[in-house]
Amino acid sequence: MPAKLDPWGSMKIENYEKLFAEFGIEPFEKFKEKFKDNRYVRRGIIFGHRDFERIAYAVQKKEKFAMMTGLMPSGKFHFGHKMVADEIIWFQELGAETYVCVADIEAYNMRDIDLKQARKLAVEEYLLNYIALGLKGKNLNFYFQSSYKIPYYLFRDTLSKRATFNELRGIYGELSPGKILSVLTQVADILHPQLDEFSGRMPVVVPVGSDQDPHLRLTRDIAAKLNFILPSSTYHKFMEGLQGGKMSSSDPKSYISLTENPKDAVKKIMRAKTGGRNTAEEQKELGGIPGQCMVYEFFVYHLIDDDKELHEIYHECKSGNLRCGDCKKKCADLMEKFLYAHREKREKSRNVVAQILGN
Amino acid sequence: MPAKLDPWGSMKIENYEKLFAEFGIEPFEKFKEKFKDNRYVRRGIIFGHRDFERIAYAVQKKEKFAMMTGLMPSGKFHFGHKMVADEIIWFQELGAETYVCVADIEAYNMRDIDLKQARKLAVEEYLLNYIALGLKGKNLNFYFQSSYKIPYYLFRDTLSKRATFNELRGIYGELSPGKILSVLTQVADILHPQLDEFSGRMPVVVPVGSDQDPHLRLTRDIAAKLNFILPSSTYHKFMEGLQGGKMSSSDPKSYISLTENPKDAVKKIMRAKTGGRNTAEEQKELGGIPGQCMVYEFFVYHLIDDDKELHEIYHECKSGNLRCGDCKKKCADLMEKFLYAHREKREKSRNVVAQILGN
Repeated sequence: MPAKLDPWGSMKIENYEKLFAEFGIEPFEKFKEKFKDNRYVRRGIIFGHRDFERIAYAVQKKEKFAMMTGLMPSGKFHFGHKMVADEIIWFQELGAETYVCVADIEAYNMRDIDLKQARKLAVEEYLLNYIALGLKGKNLNFYFQSSYKIPYYLFRDTLSKRATFNELRGIYGELSPGKILSVLTQVADILHPQLDEFSGRMPVVVPVGSDQDPHLRLTRDIAAKLNFILPSSTYHKFMEGLQGGKMSSSDPKSYISLTENPKDAVKKIMRAKTGGRNTAEEQKELGGIPGQCMVYEFFVYHLIDDDKELHEIYHECKSGNLRCGDCKKKCADLMEKFLYAHREKREKSRNVVAQILGN
Repeated sequence: MPAKLDPWGSMKIENYEKLFAEFGIEPFEKFKEKFKDNRYVRRGIIFGHRDFERIAYAVQKKEKFAMMTGLMPSGKFHFGHKMVADEIIWFQELGAETYVCVADIEAYNMRDIDLKQARKLAVEEYLLNYIALGLKGKNLNFYFQSSYKIPYYLFRDTLSKRATFNELRGIYGELSPGKILSVLTQVADILHPQLDEFSGRMPVVVPVGSDQDPHLRLTRDIAAKLNFILPSSTYHKFMEGLQGGKMSSSDPKSYISLTENPKDAVKKIMRAKTGGRNTAEEQKELGGIPGQCMVYEFFVYHLIDDDKELHEIYHECKSGNLRCGDCKKKCADLMEKFLYAHREKREKSRNVVAQILGN
């Protein structure tokens, strides 16, 4: 990510510079050409990485590698989650053994969600949507932290010997017994695919937001002590909420869920924060600001795959030719279409989900 | 345990007074009459308890209760271990659902014993000897920390939420991630029999040495928070080593193992520290000191079950009529007999062990 503004990305990038400079995350730039088929890569939404070279190499040589990701089952599956799902699916299509961890112990310990509820959310909100979006049951290891295989638990125990208090405090600050177990669990989640009982030593990529990087740093330190291959990671930006600010499961006004009633979704879009000016006149004169527009963000992340089309909207907006109302209408139409189609795909995915869960 | 010296027990009891006064362990005295069939009770070797009332009540009413104990597979099974085994067997005979935890994760994390080796030791040294000594496969849950049932691991995770750092530091002092996991594991070991997935809520007794009491205190605190029945405990004294000092698996001169070559065992007894005087004359004049005699200790703990016979030896020694050489000879004879008989019982126990392990 160079210092220039990226027309595809809609979030500020100042903070990302810090990630590169201080934490050693590297720009994803050099892989852009090779993986340009992916919209998130092309548009700079996946903006950084650690050691992605070995993943790129494995993809090119058709060698084995794995992808590991976690989900916290705490509410509705929304378009912020969809971005991550799309990444997971992308890695699976590139040939990754796909590990998806349901962080139900996390949810229980940190958010007081009981395990049954967590399981239901994980299946109905996450797994079913993943499959509807294109995830395949083949090469998929979808597991619950609370009911996985014994070697996983054992591994976590042995890890506790490898981490020191100072190391943990340096990365996480204040500690508690629950936090320590949680941290060790995350390390086990990321590293266990490399155990002989699972996929064995191989490159593993973990797609995350930069907020998750502390786990990666700790895990890489521990991996080095254990002679594991250091996990690779990619870093993505996050969509903002419909009103600006954070898109959060706990605030329905901030998101559109993938099972949202399409009519309600349309309403949410019509009320979304845009980069429009105060008056039609100003808009015509100064042009809109797509970089501050949540509607545009939906185009970038999800609704418009054709770069040319997106580019056109961007320039039409900037030049003042596009009115927010029309733009919202277009977004609402695309959204409605998407949601109706997704609803059907979800229903068709139920048997795959049952197979995956062994029901 | 009153302040008077107990002729049956051979260890100093000053320290035990502190346990009663400071930590709230109670004297076992009141249960002596009821459980006098047990040699260790009768002779004050089991000297203290917490909440043993509910175990006594369950035994009397033939209500369900459980016994939970752990073993650290780190070396030869010796006569110090035999005492604990006898206690376990006693509780099983009294009707306890019997949980025996192989602390192989502990052994791995704290003593660098690999899990395969730990498993082998646990089976060959412990389980096989337990069975030979009288433990039954019925109502026995012999498990390995490293490969147990999922709800056990899950339970430990949920426990991490219930313990605070200050609580742990107050009990254990300096902490490390490994130590925290180890402590939580021990709490899970003690409490998990009360989970629905195991025996359900019921009184559980944990026979321990007083060095293990910190675990009990923490576990009882956490049990209260979880609305579990507070675990009961009994406290036993320990045999000293053959040369005085600690009987330790890491010092073969300090112990006789239950698979020791009987001839070697005889030699060890002939070299054991006794309570004898420097000369035969002094001995005759002042009498011996059975309370400082390792040979006498073997009689008390293991080799003489008849109180009258033991009493006689005690008084003959004190009165100076008994010579150490003769006493050692008697001990050596009893030991030899025991070891030969035990060797046979061990071999006959192999099929039971195989059944228990599901081989």
